[in-house]
Amino acid sequence: MRLQKIAIIGKYPSSIESKDIYTQLIELITHLGNRGFELFIEKKTQQQVKLDRYTAIDLKDVGSKVDVAIIVGGDGTMLGVARSLVDYNIPLIGINQGRFGFLADLSVSNMRQAIDSILDGEFIQDNRMLLDTKIIRKNKTIYESFSLNDVVVKSGLRLIELEVKIDNKFVHTQRSDGIIVSTPTGTTAYALSAGGPILHPNLDAISIVPINPHTLSNRPIAVSGNSETIIEIIQMHEASLSIDGQIKFPLDLRDTIVIKKAKQEISILHPKDYCYFNMLRKKLNWG
Amino acid sequence: MRLQKIAIIGKYPSSIESKDIYTQLIELITHLGNRGFELFIEKKTQQQVKLDRYTAIDLKDVGSKVDVAIIVGGDGTMLGVARSLVDYNIPLIGINQGRFGFLADLSVSNMRQAIDSILDGEFIQDNRMLLDTKIIRKNKTIYESFSLNDVVVKSGLRLIELEVKIDNKFVHTQRSDGIIVSTPTGTTAYALSAGGPILHPNLDAISIVPINPHTLSNRPIAVSGNSETIIEIIQMHEASLSIDGQIKFPLDLRDTIVIKKAKQEISILHPKDYCYFNMLRKKLNWG
Amino acid sequence: MRLQKIAIIGKYPSSIESKDIYTQLIELITHLGNRGFELFIEKKTQQQVKLDRYTAIDLKDVGSKVDVAIIVGGDGTMLGVARSLVDYNIPLIGINQGRFGFLADLSVSNMRQAIDSILDGEFIQDNRMLLDTKIIRKNKTIYESFSLNDVVVKSGLRLIELEVKIDNKFVHTQRSDGIIVSTPTGTTAYALSAGGPILHPNLDAISIVPINPHTLSNRPIAVSGNSETIIEIIQMHEASLSIDGQIKFPLDLRDTIVIKKAKQEISILHPKDYCYFNMLRKKLNWG
Amino acid sequence: MRLQKIAIIGKYPSSIESKDIYTQLIELITHLGNRGFELFIEKKTQQQVKLDRYTAIDLKDVGSKVDVAIIVGGDGTMLGVARSLVDYNIPLIGINQGRFGFLADLSVSNMRQAIDSILDGEFIQDNRMLLDTKIIRKNKTIYESFSLNDVVVKSGLRLIELEVKIDNKFVHTQRSDGIIVSTPTGTTAYALSAGGPILHPNLDAISIVPINPHTLSNRPIAVSGNSETIIEIIQMHEASLSIDGQIKFPLDLRDTIVIKKAKQEISILHPKDYCYFNMLRKKLNWG
Repeated sequence: MRLQKIAIIGKYPSSIESKDIYTQLIELITHLGNRGFELFIEKKTQQQVKLDRYTAIDLKDVGSKVDVAIIVGGDGTMLGVARSLVDYNIPLIGINQGRFGFLADLSVSNMRQAIDSILDGEFIQDNRMLLDTKIIRKNKTIYESFSLNDVVVKSGLRLIELEVKIDNKFVHTQRSDGIIVSTPTGTTAYALSAGGPILHPNLDAISIVPINPHTLSNRPIAVSGNSETIIEIIQMHEASLSIDGQIKFPLDLRDTIVIKKAKQEISILHPKDYCYFNMLRKKLNWG
Repeated sequence: MRLQKIAIIGKYPSSIESKDIYTQLIELITHLGNRGFELFIEKKTQQQVKLDRYTAIDLKDVGSKVDVAIIVGGDGTMLGVARSLVDYNIPLIGINQGRFGFLADLSVSNMRQAIDSILDGEFIQDNRMLLDTKIIRKNKTIYESFSLNDVVVKSGLRLIELEVKIDNKFVHTQRSDGIIVSTPTGTTAYALSAGGPILHPNLDAISIVPINPHTLSNRPIAVSGNSETIIEIIQMHEASLSIDGQIKFPLDLRDTIVIKKAKQEISILHPKDYCYFNMLRKKLNWG
Repeated sequence: MRLQKIAIIGKYPSSIESKDIYTQLIELITHLGNRGFELFIEKKTQQQVKLDRYTAIDLKDVGSKVDVAIIVGGDGTMLGVARSLVDYNIPLIGINQGRFGFLADLSVSNMRQAIDSILDGEFIQDNRMLLDTKIIRKNKTIYESFSLNDVVVKSGLRLIELEVKIDNKFVHTQRSDGIIVSTPTGTTAYALSAGGPILHPNLDAISIVPINPHTLSNRPIAVSGNSETIIEIIQMHEASLSIDGQIKFPLDLRDTIVIKKAKQEISILHPKDYCYFNMLRKKLNWG
Repeated sequence: MRLQKIAIIGKYPSSIESKDIYTQLIELITHLGNRGFELFIEKKTQQQVKLDRYTAIDLKDVGSKVDVAIIVGGDGTMLGVARSLVDYNIPLIGINQGRFGFLADLSVSNMRQAIDSILDGEFIQDNRMLLDTKIIRKNKTIYESFSLNDVVVKSGLRLIELEVKIDNKFVHTQRSDGIIVSTPTGTTAYALSAGGPILHPNLDAISIVPINPHTLSNRPIAVSGNSETIIEIIQMHEASLSIDGQIKFPLDLRDTIVIKKAKQEISILHPKDYCYFNMLRKKLNWG
């Protein structure tokens, strides 16, 4: 894997606010520039760091121009960038600005050394599944999006009634606050709060978690990564679909949501000593 | 307890749709009329049954005119009527139109006999706590309402951050989908779906249940019925308060919700053979 | 698949008690005998049905003699027979004597017709993963067994402390009542009661479910079917290992339990209209 | 409240092992002796600290001799001492030797100052409910004990079947690993791990929590502190009752366990700045 052309992306869409981060980001960029890498600074990030000797670049152009993207922010920033790079085979490196993240696993404090090692080829490549979601209304696809974490169908004030099919087989009609369809990556995010299991990222599986179901025996189910999940809105007052908790799309009665694994994957580069369980222990305060 | 003047209230606010119910309701009214009770038919119900010899009455006037209200509908109808009668000491009798209810525990099939017994004084009086909720915005009470089941503070798409105090003591700052503050009556409703415990109705206690909390050790707590719960919105994109799942009120950042036991209670009259645990067994499919 | 030589196995190890079942079992055997199948009656079952014209056979010899085993009993009987046939490639057909089972999915009432269809080749073959468990004490394997459902390490009165590794990576040290390591098949059994997710049987995955963990953020994890789980007893007063809830083996401090997918599988033959989700709906009272 | 005669009790039944604690305990005793309090050192503790100028005393005699008992150990030690003092109205002060406890809330590091303040009358008195449990076998009470935390009926390897009655009303027949009947104090102990709610200690209520119930809609219930819970063993292979997780009593088929609030209470003295929610936040890592 060639890692010569590098995009640097700050917290997106909001700008980098912390003065410290700003200083450290400039240091990182200067350091990488001096090492001879070809750097592209995402436009909004460039407005903050103002290092004009490096090319500014639109987020949408990152995919076609670089070998690797370094993202400074947090898991939320990673999710947004991952979706925008879905059609390019560009690995991501994530630096957490504040709290240690599930995805952004390098900390600002030792990022220079960690990134040097990764760029020198000392990394673990971690490929993550994406979900491809379509909303069908009156036989037309009116919306399509990718998610790295999850797709959530959720009601407003009152219960929603959903019919769930997996691989065209009827699973059940569910009255609940909604349903989460999650990649293994997303199982440590919202799905976990809703009582879902953790699925190891190397598992080719999709987790389906009911949100506060009326029937107490409605429980989380994990199905094959190749399974297609179809959710139809049977009854609702108000409902919406959300993608990675970041994009919201209003739903209508009888809308059908079709969710399956995307052909594309996202790859994240971790330091050699990365361990998934170690990360779980830290984030979930085990032991 | 004198039970001479009787209000008859159909499913409210929507009208009685089933032809069968309509027939049976007319039978019940005729039967009670023949027995010499003084009957008041709630206005919208009267439009359905068209028994002009009995007085039509506005729901808001029921409290001042009658000794007891017979409600034909379901738990939802009971909740609405209970709130509207909160300032009157009028007991309720609930007949479930469809599914057996937690509150509406007489079934249409044998309602005539059951109601005769109750009106003859053969009943168990079951007093239920109400919650009194105020929304404070910029030091002013902008909304006040009573609930028989629960008060729910709930976010839209994203997490909400709430500060919870009980009896003016800081409990925690919680990131979640929201929080449910529930009477014992409400613990078998939404709070149960969200993982809360069942509190026996004779318990003078309030249940506080986080909805999908980000911190996995945030768990349901039951506090004394005399405790005051204060919830402040610390961070939000979109949030609302709901009363018994029926009334929705939009919330703003820094709104403070103050919840305590109301001075008033609601009493429900059950047949002599009523048993709370029997009802739980049926509704929750135990055994 | 040739289905000519058939073993008939009644509830095992206990005998068939119900007179009705006895009658129906004789009918089934007679019917299959008349159709020209070569029948072998498991010895204890033979003592009940006393159909001497058919060969009696030890359970341990079933594997080497027949093409298919028909089991009349319930899920528990299926589990025991499955383990005893683990080294033979013999499919099972399960008839539930009482309650509809997750594994024994034919009911006595229409078993003749269902079995005829299956033996005529009208079936869905459902291969299920088995776990291979070894207990290592002082560097020696002192016990080995297969499970179709689960392996459970469980304490007596007090908490146990366990160290869990997956693929030789440290996961955590856990204080709990124990831990369940389950095949997808077992996720609808004890693991479900302990709060674990349902894993679809076509998923090559293993579910690891803590039992009442002291740390509330210890949650069920599903890992790849190829992962090896190692559990070491770090602290205990009393502990035992159980296989499919049927075999119990006492554990000592520092015992190490190594669990991985067995090379062998068990296959169950279902009628053509079998649907996993349909079975879940029935068993879990969905909808 | 007169606090002149003081018992000092170390970790019980095991001895005080840490050298540091030993030193600090001697310091505390010397300090209190110098301040003129009349000190009684529990016998096993005396064997460790060897301060012969103070009277050694049997744990069983503590109740009749002193005004207050200072316990150095942890929650487990507090539970044992509390049960042994149940018939005396002696308040307890708890010093945690290691981890901060729910009950033993003074830390060794600042215990001298905290205890001085409490003995000077600067305390919050916290009365806690005890449960009184009887095991009835063939109409005879064969065992009786008090618990500060909980009473647990638990099976061994296999499910147990229990019939539960509250105030002589049938609740349900439950198949599970057992059942926890807990005081509010006990709701932050084992009951919490089993999915039970937290009940505030000022609530006059008892929590009943099923342990891994087979029926997924069997949920924790809190009932009035005046309710009597009766549990009958309907089916079992092996079962036992445990008191505060410390005393184990083997149960037989048809044994009946009768649990109600004891007449006696235990009182714990906390420093003036004690706050229950603050303690929950610390122990459960909230926020």
